[in-house]
Amino acid sequence: MPRIVRFHRTGGPEVLCLEEAPPEQPREGEVLIRNQAIGLNNSEAQLRRGDYPMLTADLPSRIGRECAGIVEAIGPSVTTVKPNDLVSTIPAFDVKRNGVYGEWCVVPEVGVARVPMRLSRLEAAAVWQQYLTAYGPLVLNSRLEPSMTVLITAAASSVGLGAIQVAKLFGTRVIATTRTASKEAIIRSAGADDVIITSHQPLVASVNHLTDGRGFDLGLDPIAGPGIADLIDCAAPEAAIHLYGQLAGEPSFFPLRAMLRKGLTVRGYTLWEITLNPARREAAKQYIFNHLDSGKLRPIIDRVFPLESVVEAHRYLESGRQAGKIVIEVAGNVS
Amino acid sequence: MPRIVRFHRTGGPEVLCLEEAPPEQPREGEVLIRNQAIGLNNSEAQLRRGDYPMLTADLPSRIGRECAGIVEAIGPSVTTVKPNDLVSTIPAFDVKRNGVYGEWCVVPEVGVARVPMRLSRLEAAAVWQQYLTAYGPLVLNSRLEPSMTVLITAAASSVGLGAIQVAKLFGTRVIATTRTASKEAIIRSAGADDVIITSHQPLVASVNHLTDGRGFDLGLDPIAGPGIADLIDCAAPEAAIHLYGQLAGEPSFFPLRAMLRKGLTVRGYTLWEITLNPARREAAKQYIFNHLDSGKLRPIIDRVFPLESVVEAHRYLESGRQAGKIVIEVAGNVS
Repeated sequence: MPRIVRFHRTGGPEVLCLEEAPPEQPREGEVLIRNQAIGLNNSEAQLRRGDYPMLTADLPSRIGRECAGIVEAIGPSVTTVKPNDLVSTIPAFDVKRNGVYGEWCVVPEVGVARVPMRLSRLEAAAVWQQYLTAYGPLVLNSRLEPSMTVLITAAASSVGLGAIQVAKLFGTRVIATTRTASKEAIIRSAGADDVIITSHQPLVASVNHLTDGRGFDLGLDPIAGPGIADLIDCAAPEAAIHLYGQLAGEPSFFPLRAMLRKGLTVRGYTLWEITLNPARREAAKQYIFNHLDSGKLRPIIDRVFPLESVVEAHRYLESGRQAGKIVIEVAGNVS
Repeated sequence: MPRIVRFHRTGGPEVLCLEEAPPEQPREGEVLIRNQAIGLNNSEAQLRRGDYPMLTADLPSRIGRECAGIVEAIGPSVTTVKPNDLVSTIPAFDVKRNGVYGEWCVVPEVGVARVPMRLSRLEAAAVWQQYLTAYGPLVLNSRLEPSMTVLITAAASSVGLGAIQVAKLFGTRVIATTRTASKEAIIRSAGADDVIITSHQPLVASVNHLTDGRGFDLGLDPIAGPGIADLIDCAAPEAAIHLYGQLAGEPSFFPLRAMLRKGLTVRGYTLWEITLNPARREAAKQYIFNHLDSGKLRPIIDRVFPLESVVEAHRYLESGRQAGKIVIEVAGNVS
């Protein structure tokens, strides 16, 4: 009997249960996928803990939004994929019914994408969350120019590394931050021009030093909290800071005076702005496909766990030790 | 002997002194103006009190940035105006040397503009601060469309009324707020479609009611402080809130979760982004001149004080009782 991952209460990684469950039949507009690889995201640890700002899980709940696998069956009116296609999923659906952790998932057709020839199946499970998250702030909502400096914090995360790659498509200078010195090499391999190790180097002074006192033009930050004040301090006049998470988990004051003085923009952003809007989603997919096909974008995998170790994989996800994407391989489905 | 207004210490309105001072000769690139009318701005009360976020006065200091009058003399290399021209001033200079309260002022040529034929001299002293402040958020940094709803708070201020007029140039719906019921009529006369009297009507519920629960698309607010939370609450998805002041004078928390959920943008803004950038300044002037010349923009004057009553005028400015611009008339220079 195939297995899926569900949780019946919110809590630590141990609430994730591997349970036997027969595949559901795809309904109108749905696709049943036999998963081969599953990409893990921080927002899934938040959902599991019960502190995901976008959604509260309706228990018991499936979990997960990114996987790659083989189409097993399609529901009525599905036209863009057919059985035996190799596909991956785009996070554009409800996890309660469509969560992907496990050996199979049922997702809406709009949440299915082809797998570029250059990508492995592990990499294909690591595409959409990171590049779609980077796409909004860096492509859709900005006009990046080579003269600009982009600051990417928590840069060793999968989104951080993906965002570095996207920013470099525009020829901008990228300054990246990480707390962990050992992650510098992988951050540089993604294209960062400068890396600030924030456990040893003060952010504001480092950015000011690297930019001759001017500061960064566009910031991309999933941490927020009190660190916003530092970002504001090393932002250039009329810079924009795009916040896409709340890893700090702490409130902070509104930096009004500095925002007035410098004419700063602060924007909250989640990839739902892309995935729930059909026109944007299609434009974003095309953009990302083009650069995956050309090899200019390529997901960076940190570590692979077997499905049986999903609890351990989530523990590792929350440890912050990874640099790049954590992927689960579904051995039973790999041929 | 002509008189100018200066202050030798920061404090209440009474620190403003009317002192005799011979006109300075205009230097390279400067223009000496015999003032006939002077427009008062809230930021001048802040400068006088010592809590202007953009600048701390270097004492003793002149004060004021908006006036209308006759060119008395021009310095070397000035080409765009000549003696006896009727002009007004654009806030694009240092007040220490170039402050305009008094019977004369010396300002840089870039801070001088012609007076449109449709405007009185009192109105000409009330043009640039309000329309340039509105221009950035509503014209330069936004793409307003008739389907959008603009929320303008503190709408009976000169900037508020000017911003209503500018927003209506785009055919957008304008919801305006004021604490004072008696100001509703003048706010409607500026073009507001709906007025919320915040002393009696709750902001969030009122905006939601007026927009069928959708919220506003673009907000323009000089108050900030704890009221930011209310603005966030009645903002539509992907709305932008432009803050251009800190009248509340109180800190507030950073509304991260709602900004993430709704994809909101918050921007700090001052008209210095326009006035200190030559290309933007010229484009803004042209835009505003076009609409002043056509009669679509027209400053609203609240009350006129004689120069001798500058202290009383500042008291009135800080009382919040005005609806529109407070102007000082310089009787001795009016022919």
